[in-house]
Amino acid sequence: MSGRRRRSNIGRSTVNARRLKIFSTSNKMVDTDNLTAVLYGINDLRLEQRPIPEPKDDEVLLKMEVVGICGSDVHYLVHGRIGPFVVEKPMVIGHEAAGTVAKVGKNVKDLKEGDRVAIEPGVGCRKCNYCREGRYNLCRDMAFCATPPFDGNLARYYVHAADFCFKLPDHVSLEEGALLEPLSVGVHACKRGNVGIGDTVLVLGAGPIGLVTLLTAKAFGASKVIIMDLVQSRLDTAKDLGADYTVLADSKASEEDTIQKIIDTLGCQPTKSIDCVGFEMTTRVAIQSTRTGGMVVLVGLAQPNVNFPLSDLLLREVDVRGVFRYVNDYPTALEMVATGKVNVKPLITHNFKMEDTLSAFHTSRTGEGNAIKVLIHANPEWGK
Amino acid sequence: MSGRRRRSNIGRSTVNARRLKIFSTSNKMVDTDNLTAVLYGINDLRLEQRPIPEPKDDEVLLKMEVVGICGSDVHYLVHGRIGPFVVEKPMVIGHEAAGTVAKVGKNVKDLKEGDRVAIEPGVGCRKCNYCREGRYNLCRDMAFCATPPFDGNLARYYVHAADFCFKLPDHVSLEEGALLEPLSVGVHACKRGNVGIGDTVLVLGAGPIGLVTLLTAKAFGASKVIIMDLVQSRLDTAKDLGADYTVLADSKASEEDTIQKIIDTLGCQPTKSIDCVGFEMTTRVAIQSTRTGGMVVLVGLAQPNVNFPLSDLLLREVDVRGVFRYVNDYPTALEMVATGKVNVKPLITHNFKMEDTLSAFHTSRTGEGNAIKVLIHANPEWGK
Amino acid sequence: MSGRRRRSNIGRSTVNARRLKIFSTSNKMVDTDNLTAVLYGINDLRLEQRPIPEPKDDEVLLKMEVVGICGSDVHYLVHGRIGPFVVEKPMVIGHEAAGTVAKVGKNVKDLKEGDRVAIEPGVGCRKCNYCREGRYNLCRDMAFCATPPFDGNLARYYVHAADFCFKLPDHVSLEEGALLEPLSVGVHACKRGNVGIGDTVLVLGAGPIGLVTLLTAKAFGASKVIIMDLVQSRLDTAKDLGADYTVLADSKASEEDTIQKIIDTLGCQPTKSIDCVGFEMTTRVAIQSTRTGGMVVLVGLAQPNVNFPLSDLLLREVDVRGVFRYVNDYPTALEMVATGKVNVKPLITHNFKMEDTLSAFHTSRTGEGNAIKVLIHANPEWGK
Amino acid sequence: MSGRRRRSNIGRSTVNARRLKIFSTSNKMVDTDNLTAVLYGINDLRLEQRPIPEPKDDEVLLKMEVVGICGSDVHYLVHGRIGPFVVEKPMVIGHEAAGTVAKVGKNVKDLKEGDRVAIEPGVGCRKCNYCREGRYNLCRDMAFCATPPFDGNLARYYVHAADFCFKLPDHVSLEEGALLEPLSVGVHACKRGNVGIGDTVLVLGAGPIGLVTLLTAKAFGASKVIIMDLVQSRLDTAKDLGADYTVLADSKASEEDTIQKIIDTLGCQPTKSIDCVGFEMTTRVAIQSTRTGGMVVLVGLAQPNVNFPLSDLLLREVDVRGVFRYVNDYPTALEMVATGKVNVKPLITHNFKMEDTLSAFHTSRTGEGNAIKVLIHANPEWGK
Repeated sequence: MSGRRRRSNIGRSTVNARRLKIFSTSNKMVDTDNLTAVLYGINDLRLEQRPIPEPKDDEVLLKMEVVGICGSDVHYLVHGRIGPFVVEKPMVIGHEAAGTVAKVGKNVKDLKEGDRVAIEPGVGCRKCNYCREGRYNLCRDMAFCATPPFDGNLARYYVHAADFCFKLPDHVSLEEGALLEPLSVGVHACKRGNVGIGDTVLVLGAGPIGLVTLLTAKAFGASKVIIMDLVQSRLDTAKDLGADYTVLADSKASEEDTIQKIIDTLGCQPTKSIDCVGFEMTTRVAIQSTRTGGMVVLVGLAQPNVNFPLSDLLLREVDVRGVFRYVNDYPTALEMVATGKVNVKPLITHNFKMEDTLSAFHTSRTGEGNAIKVLIHANPEWGK
Repeated sequence: MSGRRRRSNIGRSTVNARRLKIFSTSNKMVDTDNLTAVLYGINDLRLEQRPIPEPKDDEVLLKMEVVGICGSDVHYLVHGRIGPFVVEKPMVIGHEAAGTVAKVGKNVKDLKEGDRVAIEPGVGCRKCNYCREGRYNLCRDMAFCATPPFDGNLARYYVHAADFCFKLPDHVSLEEGALLEPLSVGVHACKRGNVGIGDTVLVLGAGPIGLVTLLTAKAFGASKVIIMDLVQSRLDTAKDLGADYTVLADSKASEEDTIQKIIDTLGCQPTKSIDCVGFEMTTRVAIQSTRTGGMVVLVGLAQPNVNFPLSDLLLREVDVRGVFRYVNDYPTALEMVATGKVNVKPLITHNFKMEDTLSAFHTSRTGEGNAIKVLIHANPEWGK
Repeated sequence: MSGRRRRSNIGRSTVNARRLKIFSTSNKMVDTDNLTAVLYGINDLRLEQRPIPEPKDDEVLLKMEVVGICGSDVHYLVHGRIGPFVVEKPMVIGHEAAGTVAKVGKNVKDLKEGDRVAIEPGVGCRKCNYCREGRYNLCRDMAFCATPPFDGNLARYYVHAADFCFKLPDHVSLEEGALLEPLSVGVHACKRGNVGIGDTVLVLGAGPIGLVTLLTAKAFGASKVIIMDLVQSRLDTAKDLGADYTVLADSKASEEDTIQKIIDTLGCQPTKSIDCVGFEMTTRVAIQSTRTGGMVVLVGLAQPNVNFPLSDLLLREVDVRGVFRYVNDYPTALEMVATGKVNVKPLITHNFKMEDTLSAFHTSRTGEGNAIKVLIHANPEWGK
Repeated sequence: MSGRRRRSNIGRSTVNARRLKIFSTSNKMVDTDNLTAVLYGINDLRLEQRPIPEPKDDEVLLKMEVVGICGSDVHYLVHGRIGPFVVEKPMVIGHEAAGTVAKVGKNVKDLKEGDRVAIEPGVGCRKCNYCREGRYNLCRDMAFCATPPFDGNLARYYVHAADFCFKLPDHVSLEEGALLEPLSVGVHACKRGNVGIGDTVLVLGAGPIGLVTLLTAKAFGASKVIIMDLVQSRLDTAKDLGADYTVLADSKASEEDTIQKIIDTLGCQPTKSIDCVGFEMTTRVAIQSTRTGGMVVLVGLAQPNVNFPLSDLLLREVDVRGVFRYVNDYPTALEMVATGKVNVKPLITHNFKMEDTLSAFHTSRTGEGNAIKVLIHANPEWGK
């Protein structure tokens, strides 16, 4: 279970892991330890104590259990920003998470203390047109964990809107619960792409998002999935996860050769392509490979501008749709895991306890040990 | 009715306009004049006699009446090719057409001699998946008038699949019938863009396609349509045709300024943008202007590759769909004209008789006289 | 403006229309008159004073202006219930309303005192799957004005969720604002039926809902609309509002004859049919009239069970969709009125001041004076 | 392979099973045996010799291999008609079929002699709006095997449109090929119902169509499928085929109790219900069981009119869609079988050689031996 743990000395550490437990007047033990991972700036991630918050009427207090590290978390650590989102004041990191309900607000009816839940990290304003029309991922006032200025949830305790917490069945682990976050991106991509029976799907990129997209495409009924990456070990994992075909990309190969290699391997043009990388090369390959009348879904964003083969879009009516996070996809992701349609466990390569957060980030950043998904366990009882 | 006619001396002329009429054994007058406009190569468009064809069982023989000149016709004349389509042998030009049924094949039940019809110029194979699934515009074996190697219909007589001929009600003119062809492009664009009540639509380009798209968007219920062009006279026409707002593009202005000008004029971001130009500038402006969660429809194609603002597609889920010709759109286009929802007549600026085909092409090519749509009348009785 | 006003003596009247105005300590005049129409039971509608409520953070206090009488209001008055919804305790009546913002809650940013608004009367829980997926009309915890146990808004003052108040442009009247409520039902029906260009639409019933459906279908681009009713005067109104054809139903005619009459009048089968009545006869006529592959939208509900021609649904794939109120349709309805695409004013046949509420209900109930839409003016300054 | 074969003496038999083989001038053996099953009237099915037909340019001549018996075949045998379709002259029976290409028309490019194919039995006119818009199943001029006046394909030889023959991969058997026909009905039902991940599906009826619908729903990603029937043995088969839950219907139970039993067994309301029976009871149970905002797909048709719970359609927006055969579904059905997503083999309970056609029909009609799908082998080499 615990995996490979490593020490790291990047950044300054203010770890104060001493757990404080005191007894309240009612003699019930009260936990006061709320160790929290706070990003102060570039390469400045600190662990510090913060007060345990109180849930409002429609919220729950969660005892955090598992928090995965996402590429965006690493990006904030290394660059202090992602596009227009700049870390201007200390921000709690973490948004791929699962926890246990510790306390419920007075209006909360669907959850109770002790429930294990996956946490959908972004909550819309519930009042704008996007929210009311069911596209809350586009809400301009969305509060999303660990996207400035909003705090994330890599902490011992955290409060969240109750209706954005999804109760896990007994047979679904907290680790799987945390992985519903990236999995939901794959779900949103496949829903946007209307992936189903009869589709042959090209997935560009075999990192965590590429892999969950592969898993989802198969669960949605895609006949064949072919996946491409520059790294063979990632393709091996993809193969283990159910990819029908893999293509090792050659960064020196021409666009035409790469496209031909994909089509030759698959035996036909993909009906849908999902680009989980977002470089000009991958986007162009996705569009040009796709069957006339097909669809390209863009998930990864590595370059803000790319040279687009416009004629494929017009002369062949290849549609292009982007994906921003997910919307109403957690229930689907949970369903896929709970029914066994997808198994996300092989994605978990590393586990760290919270006190080793810096090491966890180091591993995720460097990818050492063929890291795919690195998890941090916020519950101090973990591994004991 | 006849408009401005001009003489032209471009190209070689092989006009043989003498009409041949002889009497058959049954004493019924038989027309033998089938003057036909044949493109032999770059700037080599000739009028010559060809035999009058016989309709097959499911076809009709049409006495051609009105044939509009499309930008693509001019492009073939000037460049001898459009992308992969090369004029390698003499090809009859013309595809925006209306005619009168002169003879019906033995299986034809819905048309009879004398019916006035609009001619949808592309007929699919009827057997491939695209044809059977209702997307025949993507059929690889489509025979499309005046797209090499298929002949067009600028001739006195022409045979066509009966079910691709749409009977015009008495109150719809043959000129309007010919204009259903470009109008169908506007219909397909608005259907692809799901334009309707509540939409605010940006149309880029006020040439013939931009103008029919404007007309269609209004007929589809768009609340407001704003249209942009580099030429004021075109915008004036657009205004006359019902544009709510016009924006004179400034080729020296920055992208940001252009976008801001559109939004300021419209009072909000367009929900949908339709690019009828297809230069990098227009495509980028379309995408970046469009409201989050909106849609961009690409109709014009001026550059095979353009630098695309990828982040708008992903972070704001602005969808992109291209348009290739039209599919099942003629009935809608006819309906709009027949019910008076759109009036295409103002688009017709010039009329020529067939013998003056070269002049007609000259006018269309140069745009002189503020030419928008130039029509050629194939019926020798026209204007008499 | 004021129309025909009549006296009525139905029910018990507790009208206390004396307006109380006192000055607060800040010397600003404070209104204390909150005359309110409360339904105590069958045929027991009383006007009584109630305290003026305070808006919560996300709410606005509205000075009520215009409240239309809906068939459901009359039904509650006469029967004390509609299906499972029973008036078990005194309930304020009224839900087709417009008002003026009198005070805003502290979180409200998009509205300010003095804004004239249309009030969408039902507010969902914002947390269930239906609300989050954009189908809040199906929310089980929806609070809907004048649907037990929730109070309506026929009162001098009323508080409502700010985001369910739609600001009216200056040129849209408060009367039109109130009529957005029934109009939104027409919008929802036409959206559910995907009505658009090329559709020929059969509307069953020419009461208020039938008429707004007719208006909406035309605005959505329907080529032809045919409307049927048992009452000629209603059909005359429909004709004035833009119906292309009308059919006077004959209650003694056979189903077959009625269907044939519709098809003969229209010249073809309707592509879509919208039943705004909901009796077995109308539902059956709707389904059997509709073109193969078409759609029937059910809006009216007069019988809980009807004998359905199942074979039309299967052998001809005529789809059936019901309509429950509206969802995200107010903006569309407002857009149609603001742009002049629809004119709802001819629907307004009667106006009453609030003190004459009982007369207003009497008129609406009996339909006397060819009543279509009866409005009550809650602002005591009205008509002065 | 051969299963249980029985003798039967129903009907008149004109079996002439002597195979005629002569040698043509080119010394190539020429088959002249075209034993054919012809329905002359009620309970009058005869085997007789007919000439071997010649394929037209776009057709193929098929050596027939496997033909399944459908409920409609039995219905024609017993009643001489189905609704408006009356057997007025001798008609070849059979439409669930697979064969081997014996000869190709001169335009046929995608098939060659020896190819094993599944035969989609209905070919549209290719010219009407339905055909051109991709809904050819609604074509009024469709020629459908064994639907009067069109001959079916239970014969030694048969010609068919080449593009309606689907080549089977080597690992897919001819028996599976024949079963693509009923499977395509399940595919069409699940496509019409938009069945996918997250759906809980109720299937009414566990006959052949109910079972293929179950298989398809699972392949389309339905989370849970519950199936109801009056016969326990059918439910046992359903369970073997992957049903998550089964409910034994009690014909004496009230509607309410039946609905409650379904919901209790499933643990929630189904999101979609598919009625493969078509009696009033099943249709009503389907509609009332389904979740608010869900969908009911009607596949079975046992009563032309049924009493419908209208209020569920309106107040809960449960949509209703019928299914007529299939359209563009064969490729999906073949894909599901070829990739192993569904296994139709357990549906095959009986096999007969063509000479025993009457016995085969007897078995299918009586259901003896727990018959589900009865196959007739037209190739005289079968079983040898």
